[in-house]
Amino acid sequence: MNKLTISQRGVHMPASAMRKLAPFADEAKACGIDVIHLNIGQPDIETPPEFWEAVSKFPEQTLAYGPSAGRSECIDGMVEYYARFDIPLTANQIIITTAGSEALLFALMACGDAGDEVIIPEPFYSNYAGLATMAGLHVVPFTTFAQDDYRLPPREAIERLVGERTRVILYSSPGNPTGVVYTPEEVAMLGDIARTHRLYLLSDEPYRELSYDGQIATSALHLPGMEEHVIVLDSISKRFSACGARIGCVVSRNAALMETIMKLAMARLSAPVLEQIGAAACLVNTPTSYFEEMREEYTRRRDIVYERLNQIEGVYCPKPAGAFYAMAKIEGVDTEDFARWLLTDFQHAGQTVMVAPGSGFYTTPGLGHEEIRIAYVLETEVLSRAMDLLTMAIRRYRSEPANQ
Amino acid sequence: MNKLTISQRGVHMPASAMRKLAPFADEAKACGIDVIHLNIGQPDIETPPEFWEAVSKFPEQTLAYGPSAGRSECIDGMVEYYARFDIPLTANQIIITTAGSEALLFALMACGDAGDEVIIPEPFYSNYAGLATMAGLHVVPFTTFAQDDYRLPPREAIERLVGERTRVILYSSPGNPTGVVYTPEEVAMLGDIARTHRLYLLSDEPYRELSYDGQIATSALHLPGMEEHVIVLDSISKRFSACGARIGCVVSRNAALMETIMKLAMARLSAPVLEQIGAAACLVNTPTSYFEEMREEYTRRRDIVYERLNQIEGVYCPKPAGAFYAMAKIEGVDTEDFARWLLTDFQHAGQTVMVAPGSGFYTTPGLGHEEIRIAYVLETEVLSRAMDLLTMAIRRYRSEPANQ
Repeated sequence: MNKLTISQRGVHMPASAMRKLAPFADEAKACGIDVIHLNIGQPDIETPPEFWEAVSKFPEQTLAYGPSAGRSECIDGMVEYYARFDIPLTANQIIITTAGSEALLFALMACGDAGDEVIIPEPFYSNYAGLATMAGLHVVPFTTFAQDDYRLPPREAIERLVGERTRVILYSSPGNPTGVVYTPEEVAMLGDIARTHRLYLLSDEPYRELSYDGQIATSALHLPGMEEHVIVLDSISKRFSACGARIGCVVSRNAALMETIMKLAMARLSAPVLEQIGAAACLVNTPTSYFEEMREEYTRRRDIVYERLNQIEGVYCPKPAGAFYAMAKIEGVDTEDFARWLLTDFQHAGQTVMVAPGSGFYTTPGLGHEEIRIAYVLETEVLSRAMDLLTMAIRRYRSEPANQ
Repeated sequence: MNKLTISQRGVHMPASAMRKLAPFADEAKACGIDVIHLNIGQPDIETPPEFWEAVSKFPEQTLAYGPSAGRSECIDGMVEYYARFDIPLTANQIIITTAGSEALLFALMACGDAGDEVIIPEPFYSNYAGLATMAGLHVVPFTTFAQDDYRLPPREAIERLVGERTRVILYSSPGNPTGVVYTPEEVAMLGDIARTHRLYLLSDEPYRELSYDGQIATSALHLPGMEEHVIVLDSISKRFSACGARIGCVVSRNAALMETIMKLAMARLSAPVLEQIGAAACLVNTPTSYFEEMREEYTRRRDIVYERLNQIEGVYCPKPAGAFYAMAKIEGVDTEDFARWLLTDFQHAGQTVMVAPGSGFYTTPGLGHEEIRIAYVLETEVLSRAMDLLTMAIRRYRSEPANQ
């Protein structure tokens, strides 16, 4: 027997849908075509000056390990930050992680074993599937639909998925990829399902500040009597436009669970230190005007994308209420093929767009094939031009005999 | 059934032996006692100026995601660095990780599934057990002994542990906690066992430069014909005294394996970016004099610890040839109790020492109870004083009737 094989976990790790498209984007660029990236959630907003200043003033000469739970400035910064949302926390209810990814990995590892199940509303952020696979958990999706504006289905549709091996319900609100912001009633319903069936409720909240039109995103940490159940995953990546810092945290009032996550954190020693210093400064000192400006800017961008997409015949885009993504349904178009075609066969005045095919956000086979996700993280003029291109492209794609 | 329990993985995560001692150290400090830390491998050497300069000159205003495989400067820096050791690599044979911890986690996840086994010579770096537990692999140890200077046992002693579920042999050289540097013959033997039984050979090499007395540490990447088997885990933590940067890498010429590790890396998006910039500068620009001075300094420290420990009656410390740890056997002393006693019952002129009990470096029950590990990462005068204290303490501990 050859033991020098790839693990089953490794074989089952999902490959990024984007990665399959990357060579086509490279080729288009090599041919001189300007590819407008609507496919990645990398904001163009500047990281606050507080971050850079704190890093440049770091006084230590030896970049030593940080404590496994996080540098005290960073934990204290998180405590102060959450207090502003009326979420009182103590330092031992927060562990600083290497971004939200590690926060989710640790939470899944602490809650479940190989073969256990995590229920997630789909479409969902693709890396949930990868991180669940790393932790050995199976994803059990329930579907939300474009025509329902990606709102939660009735309680029964979720509860019937709870089985012997279910451990966790995982969701994000404001959500990636749909931009949906769950109402307080929707969050309460998820909480109640978790309470009834004794499940952990993992709420991924990196987009907390990014909800529009006066809506306020409900944190799972606001649910009463759910101290044992609720685990919040968080990250400064989008909040302070500092995706490369890789600073996040896991938050829970369940002491036994935090003790377990602490053991996981100790096995990897510490999160990056210099970037914790920068994060701490942002958490404490970034003025509310930073978020107000950010929200205004993203609202303008959201409006362009939302309005222009819905003007295209046979396209429906629910109005995103938060985050910086829009999911649109393009009737009768195979979006995997269309996304590739945009890079290989389409251009207008030397430009094209790159979009994320919807299927990458679903685990149920066959779903998402008529949807695309757009990240509106570019300036309004570029987004307008991108919408022009997309409008032309959809028309032209549909008119080609091969795509009928 | 209550599903709101901690996972079995979480329950089995080893708790740090050091963590149990920490409250006693805190208490001693609160009583005004100066605790000299011989228990942690945090070097006091300064991080090279090249690191700080590169970070401070980082020109980008938005700290964006890096590529999942690493920033190109950092990968290219690694290629250039390895070339200096006559290890030719291409960029796609290196993935930058969040320190050596993530490199090991990814490698274990790619090589094995829950229930598979990893063979490791003990005593070993404690976090190997934690990271293996996270990946779901069982540690199968073979023991090396103080009286053999922690050298490898005969081949048969290792081979008889290879079973149906063995996937990996993991070792470090120069080694933590023993300071042993395996001879080229020893490394070749491990390689040959891996080849014969079709196993992966995981070599953890963060201490590559730190071998003394003219010895040169053999990299597993030098083994001929082992491209499919060898995976090297590396880190800049000790090399550039930058433990808090959390920059490491995983290196392999096995393309299928690297493709799998790439999928794992993509699920967590990227390693910390700012610290990759600092690492890249160190990898390319740090002069060899930095390592020469570091080696000289650690040799002086090693000599003090090695000589002074062996002068104590009933203490045997094999001469560490590399890294910055010494493992010493203290005959007839229960070192877990002794380590606590040093903090609760001993002091001389207001000072005491903190050491790591040996049992934390073994998984075989009952082993290591007469050993301690000392990290010689302090200045020579402090180390001398620490050896005075340890000499007095061992004598006094033995003379107390309760410890007879």
